[in-house]
Amino acid sequence: MRQFSIGVDLGGTNLRAAAYSPETGLRFKRSMQTRLDLGPTVVAENLCSLISEVLLQESSAAALLGICVGAPGPLELPTGRFHAPPNLPGWGGFNLRDAIKLEFDVPVTLENDANLAALAECHLGSGKELGLDELCMITLGTGVGTGIIAEGKIFHGLNGLAGEAGHASVWPDGELCACGNQGCLELYASATGILRRATALAMTGKASGLEKLFADSSEVTTSDLYTLAMGGDRDAESIFAQAGQAIGMSLATLVNILNPSLIAVAGGVSNAWPLLWPSMEKELLSRSFIYRLTQAGSSFQRHVVIRQAMLGDGAGLAGAALLPFINAVHSS
Amino acid sequence: MRQFSIGVDLGGTNLRAAAYSPETGLRFKRSMQTRLDLGPTVVAENLCSLISEVLLQESSAAALLGICVGAPGPLELPTGRFHAPPNLPGWGGFNLRDAIKLEFDVPVTLENDANLAALAECHLGSGKELGLDELCMITLGTGVGTGIIAEGKIFHGLNGLAGEAGHASVWPDGELCACGNQGCLELYASATGILRRATALAMTGKASGLEKLFADSSEVTTSDLYTLAMGGDRDAESIFAQAGQAIGMSLATLVNILNPSLIAVAGGVSNAWPLLWPSMEKELLSRSFIYRLTQAGSSFQRHVVIRQAMLGDGAGLAGAALLPFINAVHSS
Repeated sequence: MRQFSIGVDLGGTNLRAAAYSPETGLRFKRSMQTRLDLGPTVVAENLCSLISEVLLQESSAAALLGICVGAPGPLELPTGRFHAPPNLPGWGGFNLRDAIKLEFDVPVTLENDANLAALAECHLGSGKELGLDELCMITLGTGVGTGIIAEGKIFHGLNGLAGEAGHASVWPDGELCACGNQGCLELYASATGILRRATALAMTGKASGLEKLFADSSEVTTSDLYTLAMGGDRDAESIFAQAGQAIGMSLATLVNILNPSLIAVAGGVSNAWPLLWPSMEKELLSRSFIYRLTQAGSSFQRHVVIRQAMLGDGAGLAGAALLPFINAVHSS
Repeated sequence: MRQFSIGVDLGGTNLRAAAYSPETGLRFKRSMQTRLDLGPTVVAENLCSLISEVLLQESSAAALLGICVGAPGPLELPTGRFHAPPNLPGWGGFNLRDAIKLEFDVPVTLENDANLAALAECHLGSGKELGLDELCMITLGTGVGTGIIAEGKIFHGLNGLAGEAGHASVWPDGELCACGNQGCLELYASATGILRRATALAMTGKASGLEKLFADSSEVTTSDLYTLAMGGDRDAESIFAQAGQAIGMSLATLVNILNPSLIAVAGGVSNAWPLLWPSMEKELLSRSFIYRLTQAGSSFQRHVVIRQAMLGDGAGLAGAALLPFINAVHSS
């Protein structure tokens, strides 16, 4: 009998669900607004309705292997409880896994969304293209998430909290981060951080292009900034150059510690790749002798590859849908 | 038939070899001077003689499972060739594994010495004591070596170069390191770095205790500095406090990326633990929310443990002796 899974992505804005099987790929996508204002119990009910909708679409001749929900962390794994997640206020202590298990009598996994995006990128994106079963993925979105895949599986570390490279210091005496550390990568390379730096630069009165951009729109995005920079605005360019520098410094540390085959950089900010890469590469070459040693022309046959991720915004949902199959392979 | 292995430690000063089996432990240790001045071919011959000496001691009723040689990197694994190792000048391109295989018809492995020390600490030291099959180990010696053990095995990364946390920046605008990076951990936390900083402080003329120490002896060690600091010398204390700060910052990054069960800190410098730990802990608590979350009293059941390694100077040799048995388990 054909088996399928259901993947769910719980974001601060939208709930999304879809069915997946290796034979059909991802299908029957459904989504609705995440009503954070109504609290976790109601959101969990909505999430179960969405799963039911997807289930109705699937053939009755197929068997549901499992459900996986991707959510922002920190999560207490494997219990499936939230641990005071900054992006889901009021969810601390709520056990979403148990809430779903009550409704659907199949294995349910709660997993960090950045880990799931990395899993999908490994099995369906650039990892697959390069024939690799391991990678690190850094997602530059509202925050900076990181996932590590080793031997085809999510690397969890002791408590499932591995992969917080976004909160490792790039500049240890830099500005204070909400996590308690200073100068975290997230402050320089997330969309939020980039827009905050652009706003500050606009307010100096010395960056006319940026000033005009923020005057003309109340909802400037990193994509607007990118367009401005590509049009030759030096101030906008400098924001991306600094972000690229921070990313490059951070990746140099990752390469020095893990010597990974592949680092995929994802998220909206990664679309500014042409402006980010020159300063990323400069830092990587000067700060990581491993990166230098493993570039073309050395006697190390295998090169550390750093590139933009292939999967876009849907990577987290795809990874959630994939996980029950990965778990089934590794537990059989 | 009882099986045994032979472990070899190739250091810049001494060659050491020993036999090992789970039933007997490490025994028949032999050592001789490393004649770097005579070149790699002669050193390899000496190494083979040492192995033969150990072999003669072992019972003829036991079977040699394999030989492992630990050496300073970078190494090109799995070929067994040196890649311009800074501590073994002239060894670049030399294939030590093949040289030994010619003499002894058993599996021969060349492995990074810091990885082997971590392997021994995991299986015979603090990992064993805590019932863990994973750890990170940082060895603070002449340089700073790092080894990562996951699921009981050495974590190699793509080219076997993983574990260079000693060359990740602590202060990215700090002094230039021989590796090309700036402000590497090794500059602040290795014995060499600590002595260089103490010398510089003594030369300012404002640190009378240090000045006297260096005037009285031409071979000051970190152990002498430690004695001075424990006697109340504030300047000597400040050197260890800065080293502890650098180590703590570096470990915070490791914890944020890997969420390891255990980080063991080894090497001569780690004997200054009482002076290092207060500033290490301060940095860990402020810079790693994962470390904070996983300390006693939180709802995370499992705590990230950071402590001094149990095995001393012989960890590298023990790890080399252990490796053939680990490989046998994982390939069977």
